[in-house]
Amino acid sequence: MKKKLMEMLEERKDEIIQIRRHLHENPELSFKEEKTSKYIEDFYKGKDVQVDTKVGGGHGIIVTIKGGKPGKTIGLRADFDALPILEETNVPFKSKNPGVMHACGHDGHTAYLLVLADCLIQLKNEIPGTIKIVHQPAEEVPPGGAISMLESGLLDDLDNIFGIHLLPLGPAGLVGYNSGYVFPGRAYFKLKVQGVGGHGSSPHLANDSIVAGAHFVTAVQTVVSRRLNPFDMGVVTIGSFDGKGTFNVIKDSIEIEGDVRAMTDETRVTIEREIRRIAKGIEEEFNVTCALTYTPDYPPLYNDPEVTEMVASYLKKANDKDIVEVQEFPPMSPSEDFAHYAKKFPACFFYICCTPKGVEKPYFNHHPKFDIDEDALLVAAKAVGTVVCGYYNLE
Amino acid sequence: MKKKLMEMLEERKDEIIQIRRHLHENPELSFKEEKTSKYIEDFYKGKDVQVDTKVGGGHGIIVTIKGGKPGKTIGLRADFDALPILEETNVPFKSKNPGVMHACGHDGHTAYLLVLADCLIQLKNEIPGTIKIVHQPAEEVPPGGAISMLESGLLDDLDNIFGIHLLPLGPAGLVGYNSGYVFPGRAYFKLKVQGVGGHGSSPHLANDSIVAGAHFVTAVQTVVSRRLNPFDMGVVTIGSFDGKGTFNVIKDSIEIEGDVRAMTDETRVTIEREIRRIAKGIEEEFNVTCALTYTPDYPPLYNDPEVTEMVASYLKKANDKDIVEVQEFPPMSPSEDFAHYAKKFPACFFYICCTPKGVEKPYFNHHPKFDIDEDALLVAAKAVGTVVCGYYNLE
Amino acid sequence: MKKKLMEMLEERKDEIIQIRRHLHENPELSFKEEKTSKYIEDFYKGKDVQVDTKVGGGHGIIVTIKGGKPGKTIGLRADFDALPILEETNVPFKSKNPGVMHACGHDGHTAYLLVLADCLIQLKNEIPGTIKIVHQPAEEVPPGGAISMLESGLLDDLDNIFGIHLLPLGPAGLVGYNSGYVFPGRAYFKLKVQGVGGHGSSPHLANDSIVAGAHFVTAVQTVVSRRLNPFDMGVVTIGSFDGKGTFNVIKDSIEIEGDVRAMTDETRVTIEREIRRIAKGIEEEFNVTCALTYTPDYPPLYNDPEVTEMVASYLKKANDKDIVEVQEFPPMSPSEDFAHYAKKFPACFFYICCTPKGVEKPYFNHHPKFDIDEDALLVAAKAVGTVVCGYYNLE
Amino acid sequence: MKKKLMEMLEERKDEIIQIRRHLHENPELSFKEEKTSKYIEDFYKGKDVQVDTKVGGGHGIIVTIKGGKPGKTIGLRADFDALPILEETNVPFKSKNPGVMHACGHDGHTAYLLVLADCLIQLKNEIPGTIKIVHQPAEEVPPGGAISMLESGLLDDLDNIFGIHLLPLGPAGLVGYNSGYVFPGRAYFKLKVQGVGGHGSSPHLANDSIVAGAHFVTAVQTVVSRRLNPFDMGVVTIGSFDGKGTFNVIKDSIEIEGDVRAMTDETRVTIEREIRRIAKGIEEEFNVTCALTYTPDYPPLYNDPEVTEMVASYLKKANDKDIVEVQEFPPMSPSEDFAHYAKKFPACFFYICCTPKGVEKPYFNHHPKFDIDEDALLVAAKAVGTVVCGYYNLE
Repeated sequence: MKKKLMEMLEERKDEIIQIRRHLHENPELSFKEEKTSKYIEDFYKGKDVQVDTKVGGGHGIIVTIKGGKPGKTIGLRADFDALPILEETNVPFKSKNPGVMHACGHDGHTAYLLVLADCLIQLKNEIPGTIKIVHQPAEEVPPGGAISMLESGLLDDLDNIFGIHLLPLGPAGLVGYNSGYVFPGRAYFKLKVQGVGGHGSSPHLANDSIVAGAHFVTAVQTVVSRRLNPFDMGVVTIGSFDGKGTFNVIKDSIEIEGDVRAMTDETRVTIEREIRRIAKGIEEEFNVTCALTYTPDYPPLYNDPEVTEMVASYLKKANDKDIVEVQEFPPMSPSEDFAHYAKKFPACFFYICCTPKGVEKPYFNHHPKFDIDEDALLVAAKAVGTVVCGYYNLE
Repeated sequence: MKKKLMEMLEERKDEIIQIRRHLHENPELSFKEEKTSKYIEDFYKGKDVQVDTKVGGGHGIIVTIKGGKPGKTIGLRADFDALPILEETNVPFKSKNPGVMHACGHDGHTAYLLVLADCLIQLKNEIPGTIKIVHQPAEEVPPGGAISMLESGLLDDLDNIFGIHLLPLGPAGLVGYNSGYVFPGRAYFKLKVQGVGGHGSSPHLANDSIVAGAHFVTAVQTVVSRRLNPFDMGVVTIGSFDGKGTFNVIKDSIEIEGDVRAMTDETRVTIEREIRRIAKGIEEEFNVTCALTYTPDYPPLYNDPEVTEMVASYLKKANDKDIVEVQEFPPMSPSEDFAHYAKKFPACFFYICCTPKGVEKPYFNHHPKFDIDEDALLVAAKAVGTVVCGYYNLE
Repeated sequence: MKKKLMEMLEERKDEIIQIRRHLHENPELSFKEEKTSKYIEDFYKGKDVQVDTKVGGGHGIIVTIKGGKPGKTIGLRADFDALPILEETNVPFKSKNPGVMHACGHDGHTAYLLVLADCLIQLKNEIPGTIKIVHQPAEEVPPGGAISMLESGLLDDLDNIFGIHLLPLGPAGLVGYNSGYVFPGRAYFKLKVQGVGGHGSSPHLANDSIVAGAHFVTAVQTVVSRRLNPFDMGVVTIGSFDGKGTFNVIKDSIEIEGDVRAMTDETRVTIEREIRRIAKGIEEEFNVTCALTYTPDYPPLYNDPEVTEMVASYLKKANDKDIVEVQEFPPMSPSEDFAHYAKKFPACFFYICCTPKGVEKPYFNHHPKFDIDEDALLVAAKAVGTVVCGYYNLE
Repeated sequence: MKKKLMEMLEERKDEIIQIRRHLHENPELSFKEEKTSKYIEDFYKGKDVQVDTKVGGGHGIIVTIKGGKPGKTIGLRADFDALPILEETNVPFKSKNPGVMHACGHDGHTAYLLVLADCLIQLKNEIPGTIKIVHQPAEEVPPGGAISMLESGLLDDLDNIFGIHLLPLGPAGLVGYNSGYVFPGRAYFKLKVQGVGGHGSSPHLANDSIVAGAHFVTAVQTVVSRRLNPFDMGVVTIGSFDGKGTFNVIKDSIEIEGDVRAMTDETRVTIEREIRRIAKGIEEEFNVTCALTYTPDYPPLYNDPEVTEMVASYLKKANDKDIVEVQEFPPMSPSEDFAHYAKKFPACFFYICCTPKGVEKPYFNHHPKFDIDEDALLVAAKAVGTVVCGYYNLE
């Protein structure tokens, strides 16, 4: 069956590209992917397969491909939301929704998976098991769409789940993977430091929130420098220090917002504990009120070593002209809500390289000029197809 | 002549109050006092006196009262601009210009001086010298109106100059004074810290301007704590830390604005030098660019000790039912552009108390609920009149 | 009597100098002034006067000169301890006790007072009141000797007390004074920051006390920069940061010692409260233990304005060839345990200038090269004698 | 030959232990290992082998075992210096040199290697190549003994080099290894901050070195928190802040000593550059002089992946009752001057576990109570012997 599947995908390469371009032209923000969801739903119209829409109360769609024989159940997941970015590329299929852009490649994810799903539907009699196609909305914005997809119960019976991401880390044809913790978990925090305003010439009658906030910023550097195991990955970034005021008025309050990354759950716990501790300490030290909200969102993404080794071995033995090279990658710093699936089921999330041809320093995901080599879309379809065939032992 | 003058002022007490109420109802912002200037000009219409308008290219007016005999030349100065404050009092003559308010008492300063000037014009034959009535705009906003009044050249021949301020530091009838440095000088600075933006998860690829800015804030505390003579007054307030951004994006630049107060020129010089030094140090330390603009505005206000002793002795011997008490005050923290006159001519700037009757904790100048006991206006006129009479030895 | 007294003092000028040189050659540290105390005691041997030794359980001596007529009781105080300084002068009467030096002028204080006391004993029949000569040990080291002198009860009946200090602020012949708060109060604090030691390569297994201590140092700067009224004098100096350790071992604890100065009791209270607050905050912020001992020692020295005006007027009218000029001085930054007396009795502590002849930039008190113009000793004796005569109205 | 070698080692197990106990009883500090060196030299007396002593001008010894056939040349290295630690164990062979202790296991390293070398000498005819036994002094103290061993030229012809370390990370019988960067490189720095001393009450006349030093400490935290790739290992520890002084004297200078760890050369370069930058910034910011000496010592220890895979495979196939388990370990935080050899020759440095039997939480190396299970010594000898046999293909 594998050979047949690969041939079917090759024949539909252009269709994949067309779908991707359509989605690219019509991007929608996280949790607001109404038309995209409808488009996906329409794609499956008339096909011999069970389609669940509005999964988890949102725009999620799950397509259940029951194979001809009994066997294991796996999920194949693609996300389909876009970003609040004003596109700056010159592609003919540029976003028609100004300020919204598929700058993370989710258009490509969905495009390849739709066509792959259609092929698998046609070949389903040969499949000894069940394949659930997971069209997930809202990957970009915490809490993310994965949680509600999982809470729907429709995925409870998965044995394993797989996903990919388009990344410009090499030419189309290069497939990357990594085992263990591969993407860090993430948290968001907001700290309001409330002091007492007053006239700039009379500090003793006020309580300067900017000074207290600055001490928080310097103290919080010690979380990474002194509290973490130096072999563990952890980041605390304060991305916003909102203390705009009048030069000669002592500011009564400021607001700090920050971003936390951690590669293990232990590091996550340490960072949260220490940030809470420092906020309390600043409160005492400067007699201000520190209101801290700390919101962990995506957990670290853990690729099950056994599943990943399996995926890598299928890909390395693919013997396919489009899957040129398979390579181990180092861990990377973005976060992914695929991590929620991977916490529940042994999973593997791997990378389809897509650097545009002739480009040496490609724009990375989330950049207004992000672009892909569309040849990578067929690579994605073939790679995931290869994993499916390997998994079910379909030569 | 003094007795006559005092009687004339008493008779015109209501007029002073009416003028003040008119001005209060029609406040204008600094450098935009068009109607107020016109009102003052009109007041002098038809009076036997030289009136210079548009002094220094702005809304300033100087009225030169040439006395009947030769002698010294003095200035009497009152300011007439208002503040960008939304009035919150319930007075019947509340500001008709919402968002603009005479919250600093300049309406009263101008009201008393107009009537006093008119009286002095009528009595001028008896005066052995020349009195220049200095109606100055734009006291509140640096660089202030005093500089252009001085640059006009019309005040070059002054021997001394006097001014007062309404302050709710005691009941109407109380007059305060102090010798030497009485109000601190002031400077404004703005620091732009330019780093390199980037993704919150990859600090090594960016250069965090918020962290550099926070270190500036903590370091700048040492200017006051370690660089100043502990017996000298100096303040450095950072009133604005504009670093609002996105929680998970490393901020490329932030902007800090600050306010400096210093009671002596030596302290001013030290503070400026040290802030410049720290900005340079932060630049080196964090590899950022620190663009600092440092703008000294009003110098410290120095009351000439001899002139002040003279003023105090005239007031103490006033023997007037409205000038109830004369008292030495401690130095205070506001700044005043009267300081520019005082740098050029031996001067005395003193205080007319105006706490509303029955009020224990009055709202201070610049508060949206600032109010005065209008009885203080006559006190102002009489006190300055007393100084004039004393100065010219007019019993 | 005044004339007689001045003549007697003039005749004994050399004796004063000899006594001072003897004391200078034989300095003793605070609380250990055994021989100095014996020397003073011996001086009074055989004189018709009551001598109390071992006052307050230490080396203090009080000599009570009962006058021939009833009247007020005053104290004249001189201190006699030396400093732990290795003398670097080349005077022939250099310290024979290496590492101990009369570098603060207490040798001169005691020398003049002994001779003045002897003269007053001889003239006592003419004095309408009682004069207590207070030879106080241990001025230099908190808690100081003044407290035990006071606790002895022997001074309970004082009406007023006077003291002087030799200071190289002008030539011999110049006498200085100031009214109100003249010397700041002082406090001492010690902070032990206890973290957890560990290997330098594993910060997460330790808790770095040096980092916590450094944050204390930076935070404590805000006490002066943000908590004090800018018109008040206050200083917080950390003179010791004892964190010596091994470069690659995380230090388990460090010890900080600091010095506080404040010109008013209100400022003292603020500084203590804020240092305590910051220590607590650091404890919370860094999860360390902060053991703080805070010991207020000398209070601010307050010269009673009436008494000081009295003293100044006596000195200004002295009409003596040795008291060349009397001048008001600004407040200064040293502390003095004379402040304890001044808290209990209306007092005046004034300054006898002693810059060596021909020296432009004299070494200040506490410097290993500190030296005085010995002519100032007669000035001291005459100035205090003048005050006594003025006080008792003895022409 | 392998079987023979293993049997010979088993027979001499007690001898290894006796040698180790002798060395343990007679520890010598780094660069001062005179007697230990003599002991090693004596061990080889009369044996048919070339012994070079005083290698590199110090106490190093290299024993060259020329095999019976031509072939590759490898080094086997053991260190033999002890630590300045007062032993706190109760072993009967406790250090007789109080304050000096073999607390890092070098006694065991040397003991096993002496006996292994002796066996290899006896079997040398069968060896197709040359084995150099590298008895290295001074591993504990930078610059370490490895550099001079290398500079001697005697090791220039090595093809590969191997070494082990005793670590209480598991029971005797467990052998650990890891590939790539395994131990971080290290640097030492000393910073003297020179300000200007002065009286605690007059900060404006001094320049406080403690405050400048504290700002250095807080700023240096940003090197790890903001400058490093979060996936890279890097540590900056300030182990010493020598600012002991007198509480009321502003300290003129302080001295900071620190320790740097970095797993890659890139991180090393970044950390050094940033520490230098911050020192310069502090200099500018606080107008102090920052004299920084920065001494990189041991580089990161890099286990050549091919060599390491080879070693691991030999050990895994050892089929020996004493080599119970072979396991991949994570990177660790100590530094090792074996790294110098590994920079020059493809190398593998691996771990012989030695947790005392029945102990759950063993004291780690460098602890005064550090102890080993002496059974691990035979494991060490056998493991290295196994590698030698595998390397030369000696069944």
